[in-house]
Amino acid sequence: MAKDMILYWGSGSPPCWRVMIALEEKGLQGYHHKLLSFEKQEHKSKEVMDINPRGQLPTFKHGNRVVNDSYAACLYLENQFRSQGTPLILDGAEEQARMYQRMFEAQTFQQKLIDVLYYTWRVPEAERHDSAVKRNREALSAELQLWEQQVGEGPFLAGKSFSLADVIVFPIIACGVHFGLSQDRYPRLGQYYSLLKNRPSIMASWPPHWVENPQGMDTLEGL
Amino acid sequence: MAKDMILYWGSGSPPCWRVMIALEEKGLQGYHHKLLSFEKQEHKSKEVMDINPRGQLPTFKHGNRVVNDSYAACLYLENQFRSQGTPLILDGAEEQARMYQRMFEAQTFQQKLIDVLYYTWRVPEAERHDSAVKRNREALSAELQLWEQQVGEGPFLAGKSFSLADVIVFPIIACGVHFGLSQDRYPRLGQYYSLLKNRPSIMASWPPHWVENPQGMDTLEGL
Repeated sequence: MAKDMILYWGSGSPPCWRVMIALEEKGLQGYHHKLLSFEKQEHKSKEVMDINPRGQLPTFKHGNRVVNDSYAACLYLENQFRSQGTPLILDGAEEQARMYQRMFEAQTFQQKLIDVLYYTWRVPEAERHDSAVKRNREALSAELQLWEQQVGEGPFLAGKSFSLADVIVFPIIACGVHFGLSQDRYPRLGQYYSLLKNRPSIMASWPPHWVENPQGMDTLEGL
Repeated sequence: MAKDMILYWGSGSPPCWRVMIALEEKGLQGYHHKLLSFEKQEHKSKEVMDINPRGQLPTFKHGNRVVNDSYAACLYLENQFRSQGTPLILDGAEEQARMYQRMFEAQTFQQKLIDVLYYTWRVPEAERHDSAVKRNREALSAELQLWEQQVGEGPFLAGKSFSLADVIVFPIIACGVHFGLSQDRYPRLGQYYSLLKNRPSIMASWPPHWVENPQGMDTLEGL
């Protein structure tokens, strides 16, 4: 079935990484994929735009079914291949409530991270303000403190089992670590990161340009 | 079971409205709820912050389970009350793929609508730029044209049956109409709006301050 699938992805993009983790967990290795370069604007190529008119990655197709959004693709894969690989939606009501809540509040986390990491890329020079940079960093700091509390009751985000919450949130935390997030200041996030980073599905899909340059950046230093 | 639920909500907020539509569709009338005022900052009250540290609406609790995000709450309700009321997750693979894709690309739609409607509320005066206002309106216009194509193969967003895609997207479109979206310029969106607005779950949860002031606004005129 994986032969009917194609994923267009960019290295280091948390949304792309999620879909790759879900594919690994569901035992769907062998899917077709194309690694595209954001720098070269390959996500705006005709090949992508024909499937995904917003020109974003991931772009994902299973047969004739187009499921581009990372959450949509993860939920679709779990529902279509429920009896295969790791069950990613938890059964118990408590765990399921926590799983959905963490999955979706992760969007706030991701947005606040993006607001800090990509400010100069997203905001034209004439519209940039030091006050906005400061506010964005403060908002990310508050968000990190919240997740530091939320993570670590664990071992996984929704409780004792790996779930879609981990598929969705781990790439955001790993991205934070790559950009200099202090594991001393956020020890629970650090512990969670260390636990998950050696999971086979995550190792198999680790961003290749992070492997080439494991040093990372220091954008989040001091936060 | 609905007696164990409490929803804190604001009138006219698409995320709050979604949860109310889902509760109606699942036959969970009789849940407790509190209508709060954004203007009076009641969403930042201790009562809300104790459950929802970000101080956002909706805030939703079922027994001890906190599920604040609107997508999380809708998915949780459908999973926990699957055999009750309207089935909101479609079974067929094609319809399910389309349902998830529409549900989640709706976030882009909602964000672009917010960027236009609430620019002055969200951006401090010293950081506002006409160039940003213009860019936001152009982005929303492109997004509307995309949805005008996507809607209307229907009658519902994912095909022949009402689904979570409609629960999620209808409030965004209704919000657009309330703020002056031209149904002449977007006839398919207008047709979809007209079809859905009389659905019992939607009528029962219609924003009360829109009922009091059905005139609406003209913020989106000309888009």
